[in-house]
Amino acid sequence: MVDLYEAMSTLRAVRRLKPDPIPAEVLERVLQAAAWAPTGGNVQPFRIIAVQQPVLKAALQGWYHSEWHAYSKGHLAAMENMAEEPRLAMARMLKAGDYLAAHLDSTPVILVFCFNPDYMAITDSDLGRPSVVGGGSVYTAVQNVMLACRAEGLGCVLTTLLCLREPQVKALLGIPQGWYTCAHVPVGYPVLKGHGALRRRGLDKLVFSDVWGEGYVAGEVKLQS
Amino acid sequence: MVDLYEAMSTLRAVRRLKPDPIPAEVLERVLQAAAWAPTGGNVQPFRIIAVQQPVLKAALQGWYHSEWHAYSKGHLAAMENMAEEPRLAMARMLKAGDYLAAHLDSTPVILVFCFNPDYMAITDSDLGRPSVVGGGSVYTAVQNVMLACRAEGLGCVLTTLLCLREPQVKALLGIPQGWYTCAHVPVGYPVLKGHGALRRRGLDKLVFSDVWGEGYVAGEVKLQS
Repeated sequence: MVDLYEAMSTLRAVRRLKPDPIPAEVLERVLQAAAWAPTGGNVQPFRIIAVQQPVLKAALQGWYHSEWHAYSKGHLAAMENMAEEPRLAMARMLKAGDYLAAHLDSTPVILVFCFNPDYMAITDSDLGRPSVVGGGSVYTAVQNVMLACRAEGLGCVLTTLLCLREPQVKALLGIPQGWYTCAHVPVGYPVLKGHGALRRRGLDKLVFSDVWGEGYVAGEVKLQS
Repeated sequence: MVDLYEAMSTLRAVRRLKPDPIPAEVLERVLQAAAWAPTGGNVQPFRIIAVQQPVLKAALQGWYHSEWHAYSKGHLAAMENMAEEPRLAMARMLKAGDYLAAHLDSTPVILVFCFNPDYMAITDSDLGRPSVVGGGSVYTAVQNVMLACRAEGLGCVLTTLLCLREPQVKALLGIPQGWYTCAHVPVGYPVLKGHGALRRRGLDKLVFSDVWGEGYVAGEVKLQS
């Protein structure tokens, strides 16, 4: 089995997925990873719809394709002013995204994550800024699923563009009142090499010591004395 | 090192944490796990403040203590009508929560996760229901951190109650305009046995096949044909 840090440090967004079926026991291990995730009050206010029927995937693909091209248009415009390295990385991402948008329906399974805010203690709902706290009881499960995919040799990517079509997605999949969608994760075997090295900021860019702006230096975190 | 599924299947909310210091290289591995997490567009719109100064932890503990007892009061009342098993589980959780609320200041480090919604594509902001999608670019990192804690023998728990005191927390830690808080994760070595077996719903309660309500049966997920 895969070591935890190896899985985390090689979990890439894999957008080119083969139509090859996923054995039932493999998909079950991926889904079990979601069930293990922590949620507020251990309420588990999420459900996963494993969409495999071609007609349903085709509908999702149609909507995703429209939303993806509306989204990527903005990135294409922004790329012009970018430095070479991030511009090439962005171009690769967009090309892979175009592939996903064209082939979402031939992905063997799309995991549609649903949530119910009535079962969540959303502590940041009245702060006059976008709320995210409800996500603390669903994206832990999404991350577990993606790490499990990595362990199983499956590619996947966390997408949220289909939230823009939530009423249609709810009608298509029969999602009842009170439940909403928060992630759509296509899963399949990678067309290319799949997972591998990541491009991420260093800890010096992401972590502060004690107060904002106080630099964290690797290996020199101040310990309580 | 710890196997991925072993880490996931034994990651508990650990609320009784020792004041013993965490070696710098151990804390660094935990923080590195956050940096590896996927985020929308690979933007990494989160920052982590590793709070270790006693005066800062004492302020956080005071606010957390008030909010915890306001929160747990509701659970104490609800417990009366519960069946025995969930009632005992709830009682254990509340007792551990009381311990955390009383000892948060002696936890060696509190990881305060901050985020900036300007750097997020929040696709569910206009749906007339609580938004969660911004959480997709922060709780992936929080989950990685907690799994890394599990791997390192450290206890931790995802808390969000301090969002109720966000203006005070922002002032205390110097968090600038445009950045907000979404998780406060105390980390330390467990007082008791720490991680271990989980109490979670089965997949039959969490997963549907193709459409809502269509039962998922372990090992019998319909494959695309």
